[in-house]
Amino acid sequence: METTHSVDVHAMATAARQAAAPWRWPGGAVKNKALLIMAEQLLAQKEYLQTENSRDLQAAETAGLSNAMIDRLRLTDSRIAAMAEGVRQVAALDDPVGEITTMKLRPNGLHIGRMRVPLGVIGVIYESRPNVTADAAALCVKSGNAVILRGGSEAYYSNRAIAACLLQGLQEAGLPQTAVQYIDTTDRAAVGELLRCDADVDVIIPRGGKDLIARIVAESHIPVIKHLDGICHTYVDAEADLAMALALTMNGKMQRTGVCNATETLLVHRAVAATFLPEVCQELSEAGCELRVCPESRSLIPERIPVHDAVAADWDTEYLEAILSIRVVDSLEEAMDHIERHSSRHTDVIVTRNHHHAMRFLREVDSASVMVNASSRFSDGFEFGLGAEMGISTDKLHVRGPVGLEGLTTQKYVVLGEGQLRQ
Amino acid sequence: METTHSVDVHAMATAARQAAAPWRWPGGAVKNKALLIMAEQLLAQKEYLQTENSRDLQAAETAGLSNAMIDRLRLTDSRIAAMAEGVRQVAALDDPVGEITTMKLRPNGLHIGRMRVPLGVIGVIYESRPNVTADAAALCVKSGNAVILRGGSEAYYSNRAIAACLLQGLQEAGLPQTAVQYIDTTDRAAVGELLRCDADVDVIIPRGGKDLIARIVAESHIPVIKHLDGICHTYVDAEADLAMALALTMNGKMQRTGVCNATETLLVHRAVAATFLPEVCQELSEAGCELRVCPESRSLIPERIPVHDAVAADWDTEYLEAILSIRVVDSLEEAMDHIERHSSRHTDVIVTRNHHHAMRFLREVDSASVMVNASSRFSDGFEFGLGAEMGISTDKLHVRGPVGLEGLTTQKYVVLGEGQLRQ
Repeated sequence: METTHSVDVHAMATAARQAAAPWRWPGGAVKNKALLIMAEQLLAQKEYLQTENSRDLQAAETAGLSNAMIDRLRLTDSRIAAMAEGVRQVAALDDPVGEITTMKLRPNGLHIGRMRVPLGVIGVIYESRPNVTADAAALCVKSGNAVILRGGSEAYYSNRAIAACLLQGLQEAGLPQTAVQYIDTTDRAAVGELLRCDADVDVIIPRGGKDLIARIVAESHIPVIKHLDGICHTYVDAEADLAMALALTMNGKMQRTGVCNATETLLVHRAVAATFLPEVCQELSEAGCELRVCPESRSLIPERIPVHDAVAADWDTEYLEAILSIRVVDSLEEAMDHIERHSSRHTDVIVTRNHHHAMRFLREVDSASVMVNASSRFSDGFEFGLGAEMGISTDKLHVRGPVGLEGLTTQKYVVLGEGQLRQ
Repeated sequence: METTHSVDVHAMATAARQAAAPWRWPGGAVKNKALLIMAEQLLAQKEYLQTENSRDLQAAETAGLSNAMIDRLRLTDSRIAAMAEGVRQVAALDDPVGEITTMKLRPNGLHIGRMRVPLGVIGVIYESRPNVTADAAALCVKSGNAVILRGGSEAYYSNRAIAACLLQGLQEAGLPQTAVQYIDTTDRAAVGELLRCDADVDVIIPRGGKDLIARIVAESHIPVIKHLDGICHTYVDAEADLAMALALTMNGKMQRTGVCNATETLLVHRAVAATFLPEVCQELSEAGCELRVCPESRSLIPERIPVHDAVAADWDTEYLEAILSIRVVDSLEEAMDHIERHSSRHTDVIVTRNHHHAMRFLREVDSASVMVNASSRFSDGFEFGLGAEMGISTDKLHVRGPVGLEGLTTQKYVVLGEGQLRQ
């Protein structure tokens, strides 16, 4: 790819800051108009998108990328339709901006409340499928933020073509063109430059593998909303409904394995281990799941089922594959202690009929999503009803768990007075 | 001061993390018990506090600190009483932890909500009056966080004595002693060490001057909730009630000058400038306020009133003194544009009778607190009804404006199911 011309990222950031100021309140109707035109353009420009996409696909083949990676890059008809539909769905969501909450009346007659407002300028750095370009831009436009997009070089032409369609929507709706900007180069230095624009960029949201995120966190002078590992646990309590536990384990681990909310470790209370483990391991094994088990689990699992001994590293590994680590625990406390030590604080599940155990687990497990009797796979912006998702935060500050429109906003205080003076 | 022995800050952070885990849910009654004993101890140990305080006062005199600084250090009877009362008031506030908000029912029967939980471990670095030791610790205990305190060397003995009283409260209530830890050294390297404890400290809150905060932001590997300048504006609209505008300007500027929420710049609409400026400048001048004005203001202010010509730097200066910069503007838009360029995004005020102007100002001014017809001096956690204040955030992420108990917590998702599987 020869597109490594240099781009003035600082100038883009300054332009984004300017775009974020006056159009902070274009009103929901204007933002929605822009989004609907963006969606139309994505459909209308299908051939252009696919022509540009084919340049990326050819480069990927030349570079010898795996078939799985090449497939992920491909902009099929149905994927373009889904991308446009995603943008339309964002338009249909409630406007998060301007909502005033908790307007309280103080004894001196001041009304004091909080108003939800855009963060300002968001930098999105991604290396995923090209649809992220449209998804991220739509969420930022809807939440009133200006966005600077930096996609992976392997999807350079596809991302650029999608960004051109988005620009059309901004223009026709009368919004500043610099509200959505795409860093039009594959020069890697541009990422470093963006991470130094702390005067004009309010937050960086990376989407991609661990290496990308680690690099960004290390380099950034701007706050980062990040997602690291998804080492999720399902704990089967002494008082679990074992049929439910079986179904939830199978769903949590096997419904889709390459995702951050898949269960990676199964914890089983000793009181039910002898009954539950042979059953669940049989089913997992038949479904093609590799089992890495603690010594006590091994002693309870029939020899006909193939298992491996878990090593220390297994408890801290996000497999993203059909592999499950299994450990027997003595108590709810031991389960929570294991989770405290090994969870990536993404999503952890208890299966139990006991109300007190459920409540303790809910309160004491310090993860972004804590669930009772539900599949870890539900940990997702769409499933949580946010309507859309910018990613999942495993951070604690600002936003935890799935990041929807609200996570792209902040709240300022608003004070309505009639001449009150401080005594 | 010879107390520069080295302290293992990393070990303190690890201990804090451990303390934060099991006692995350000691229940409000236990936390309140600890706080009330802390308050009692502060009163009971008054003589000890004053003896230790006198060591700091002597050192301050020897070091030739200003009388104002020495006065701020002094633990008088009434200040000790006020400190104890502050801790009691925190005990009386609602427990922020465990509140579940927005519990929604999804079409598949899952209940999905958010539960407020402690951030975990908070590092507080301050150089203010010794009462910050008690204030910050009380807020952290109430919000379920473990805290590591690092006070200024000029208050070393006072802070250490206060921390000893607090420890008594933890012990008698049965809470871990490492829930509140004081870095017992004046060795400056300890601050740098704390800022590198990113595995065990979740957030750093600095309280002090610009230099301290700049150093912490530059050095910290941990997210910082910070407060930079307070360059606050009061804008007198064309349709302002001028008597109210006069009172709000006087209160905003002169009620207390050395604080971050004092008004530093007055913007006046041209339509009322000729009437308003002579009046307000007369009163400000009589009250001892120095005036730094734009050329148009100068032409409208009677010559008997002493004024200086404002230079460019005036619009970007936090005076923290009886000095006010004054500028005439042509329109609401020009006022908001000035604020956009020069405000530190702390607190900005419009004085107007016009509803549309008030609403535009509220929406479009991007500051932590935006006020209509109220004194900028109200920008304060107590005045806002938060019951207590850890500081004021001029950041956008996580918390904006006064930081109370809620700002020391985060929200996790909680999911209540009955065996739901993802399709």
